[in-house]
This record gives sequence, C-alpha cells and structure tokens, in this order.
Amino acid sequence: MTTSALRPNLDDRVTQERVSLPPEVSNETISVMTGHESIRSFNPGSISEEALAAILISARSAPTSSNLQSYSIIVVRDPERKARLSAMVGNQRCVIDAPIFLVFCADISRLKYVAQRQQRHFAATNLEMFLTSSLDAALAMQNALVAAESLGLGAVPIGSVRNDAIAMAAELGLPDGAFAVVGLCIGYEKAGTRRGTKPRLPHQVTVHEEQYSSDGLDDHLVDYDKLMMARRTYAGRRVSMAGEPETEGADYGWMEHSARRCSTPDTIRGAAASLRENLREQVEQRGFVVR
Amino acid sequence: MTTSALRPNLDDRVTQERVSLPPEVSNETISVMTGHESIRSFNPGSISEEALAAILISARSAPTSSNLQSYSIIVVRDPERKARLSAMVGNQRCVIDAPIFLVFCADISRLKYVAQRQQRHFAATNLEMFLTSSLDAALAMQNALVAAESLGLGAVPIGSVRNDAIAMAAELGLPDGAFAVVGLCIGYEKAGTRRGTKPRLPHQVTVHEEQYSSDGLDDHLVDYDKLMMARRTYAGRRVSMAGEPETEGADYGWMEHSARRCSTPDTIRGAAASLRENLREQVEQRGFVVR
Repeated sequence: MTTSALRPNLDDRVTQERVSLPPEVSNETISVMTGHESIRSFNPGSISEEALAAILISARSAPTSSNLQSYSIIVVRDPERKARLSAMVGNQRCVIDAPIFLVFCADISRLKYVAQRQQRHFAATNLEMFLTSSLDAALAMQNALVAAESLGLGAVPIGSVRNDAIAMAAELGLPDGAFAVVGLCIGYEKAGTRRGTKPRLPHQVTVHEEQYSSDGLDDHLVDYDKLMMARRTYAGRRVSMAGEPETEGADYGWMEHSARRCSTPDTIRGAAASLRENLREQVEQRGFVVR
Repeated sequence: MTTSALRPNLDDRVTQERVSLPPEVSNETISVMTGHESIRSFNPGSISEEALAAILISARSAPTSSNLQSYSIIVVRDPERKARLSAMVGNQRCVIDAPIFLVFCADISRLKYVAQRQQRHFAATNLEMFLTSSLDAALAMQNALVAAESLGLGAVPIGSVRNDAIAMAAELGLPDGAFAVVGLCIGYEKAGTRRGTKPRLPHQVTVHEEQYSSDGLDDHLVDYDKLMMARRTYAGRRVSMAGEPETEGADYGWMEHSARRCSTPDTIRGAAASLRENLREQVEQRGFVVR
C-alpha cells in the first residue's frame, strides 16, 4: 500500500499555484507536505500502535535547539479525558472524534532537574528559553503531522490548548516547567469532508529575496482576497464582532477575517473568543520566566 | 534519481532504537525525518532554482495558526551578506559555506497593515501573538528542512539569528513587526562529514501516556549520558565555564553539557556565549509586545 494510493487529495499546492516541479525535485515527501489540508472530521476507527510508533519517532527526530530536547509529548486516547480537553479548547468536536490527541509541551522541568543534579545554577529563566522550548515542541508537532499525513491519516493542529494553560496542565499532570503549546488530532478522515488544500498568500508576499520587500503587497492581498471569497473559505466560519450585525451579502475574505481575528472579536466559531491576553501570566505560573 | 539513492545516512533513528516499523507504516517520508542529521559542512555547489522552489512551496504549505500566515522567509544567497550574517550568529562557517541561507521571521507587519486597511483596531499585542507568529515561522522552517533533506540536500537550523535581533533586522531590511526566529543553511554536504543521526533521549522520557510521568527518569538520563559519551558527541564542543579549568578526562555527557548550556556559560563553540537575556527588549523594539 503506497502513500499516494491512500491520499485522495489531488488538489495540492503545486497544482493549485501551477508551479512546475520537474521530476528531479518531485517526490513523495514534498507531495505529502504540499498536499497538507487540516482534517477536522474523523471516523471512529482507531490507529494502530505501529502507526503511532512511526509518528512519534518522527516527532522525536525533529531538530531541537542545542539538543536540549526541551519538550514533551502527551498521548491522549481516553475518551473521557478527550471530552474534558475538548471543552477546554472551545468545544472542538475533533478532539473527541480523533482516536489520538497528542499534546506538545514546552518542557524545561527536565533541564531544571539536570542542572540541579549537576550542581549548576539554572539561569535560563527568560523569554529565550520560553521561545526555544516552544519551538522545540512545534518542530516535533510538525514532524508528527507530516508522518501522519504520509500514512494516509488526517490531522489538525490545535492551538487552543493555550486557552487555559492552567486547566490543561492540571488535566495532563504537567510538572512545574511544562506548558502545552499545541495539540494535534490524528485519525482517519470522514469521507467527503475534504475541501481541498487551502490557498496560501502568494509566494511574493511571504518570500523575499535578500531583503524584505513590500512591493505590490496591496495588489497581491486583493487577489488573494478574491480567491478566498470565490472559494467560500469563510462561509459559516465568520468571526463575529460585538455590537456589529453581520451583513449577509457583504464581502468577507482573508483580509476582513484576519483583521477581525487580530482585533477584539466577540466569538470565533461559536466559542467565546479571546486573544489569550492572560497567556503571559499563565506561562509564568507554569514555571517559565518571560522577561 | 530517487531520494534514497541520494541519502547516504543508513544510521537512522528507527535502526538505532531498534524500533520495528512494519511495511505498512514505513515510507520514504518517515525515513527522511527519522534519518535527520544536522549538516554543517557544505560543498561550494549551488542549488538549482527548481530545488529551491520545491523547498519554498513546502515551507509555505505548513499549517499556520488561523491561516494568519504571520511569518516571512528571506532567501539569502549574496556571499557578502552571508558573511555579515555569519558574523552575527557567532561566526558559524556554515552560513558562509551554504549556498542558500533562509531566514524565517515572525511577521505581524502584514496583519497590522490589513487591520488598518479594514479599519479595525489591531489588538494582538501580547505574548500570544508573538508566540503564534514564531510558531508559524518554525513550522515553515521544519517543512523546508524536510523538503531539502528529501532532495538529498544537507541542512542545519540556526537559532543564533536571535543573538542580535536588531542587527539582523537591519541587514535583512525587516519592517516594524518582523523578527528573525530561526535560520536554515541548505547545501550539498561535504563528503565524509556525517557523524550519524544523533541519539535522542529515550522515548519514555519525552513521550507520556495520558498524563506526564517522571518514572524512571534518572535511570534513563544516566543511560543516555553513557550513550552520548561513548559516541563522543561533545568532543571538541564542550561549553566552557568562566573560571573553571576543564579537566580533560572528566565525564562529560548530555547532562553536563545541557546543565552548562542553561547555566551561565563563558563560551559555546569558541564564540562568546549568552542566554540572550536581552531578547525580550529586542523583540519589543522589533514591534511585538511581550506581556
């Protein structure tokens, strides 16, 4: 059973953007990555222990800053725990439906222990260590996602594990110095729920040669907006603003969605929205120093 | 030319840890990820435009929080610029030798522009937005790394782009709201410089079932230390501590290295070391609010 036989997504980004990748720079791995689409609807079927082992060893193979490995992964399968976690991340149904929910944590608890053991003063109490350990967690998550997708599984990262870092830590029994950065739902997708790979901002907007350039930015954003509207990307997924009645026929594309998302929205996907204004306070309660 | 024909690394993590992955959970993608090894010595040969296109479209296909795409990538090839950047990251020779140096930036400048354009108040001025955009940059970097390695190229992430965020931003012409999170050297490896995939902490240390567990931690750390010493992982790469003469024959493994790294080291790899104590101040100068 090959990977390509398993993946129904023919609408990958290479085709979408009409990029010509000659055979010598085309392979299964690049095809898996460029075909990425977040999957939020899962069949009840479980995942084999072997598939999970492949996903986890891929995650553990990601680069880690100075080999400090300042992250931990919690594997959650218990339906009751998943139901409680789902409630903590804005009632996202996918956390319940996915047979496996992985939580990737920034984790400096081991490094603190090791410093003490070696009779060294642990001095990495600053924004850099918080960032480094969060990046370690993110890189491991990305490898887990790519591994899962390469096996024909569907997956979606869940940033809302940061909605309530304290409750999340209590549920997962995290030690002082560990903080849930991002979750990952993994399972077999429910047939017929794919919408196709979501278009990205044009290459010219996010990629710059030698130095940053905003040339043509506005034109590119307008084009992208039209594409996202034509695709009905945000149909049923609008961010509502307090005190603003929604006009049904109004144009609503990436720009309006993103502007609302970074403003002070009232609800996002039916759940009370927040910009996680208390994240710093919570992260510091979890044993990090962010200064 | 298949990928496996290009990759000389047979010592991947699956073999190293004697994990049995049956054929249905083995594929090229997982093999690329589990065979990851940072490559720091490059041949002078350049990289084709097609290979770079494949790497960049893979990077742009990584998940991004709420599709905000709050990152930017700077592609650096100019030898003089690479020499200046090398000096900023602790004189790492690989930045000069690699034909391509990618810099992945957290970037909220576009979102600020879009908010203004849509007449919305940009309120994402907190640790959450800083973290989200840094994670976006990290996920794109990881896909770029995996894509490069799948094409038989060598690569190494460079976290030291955070050594001096202000100088880095000036060199790359970054706008207010952009900050270099991590770099990536990419090139053809110099033959004979691979040391084999670096062993990771045992699965039981970094992966937890249902809830975090520190059971057996000390034994696992001692085993890992022995493995890393036997492999001479830190030979010639010790972190020196101010005022402490180095004893040549002393045991020096992952624990001592990591403890020193998180303490107040004097030099790391010959360069003056720092825990980037001023990162928060610099990040705020770059237009983020970290509170």
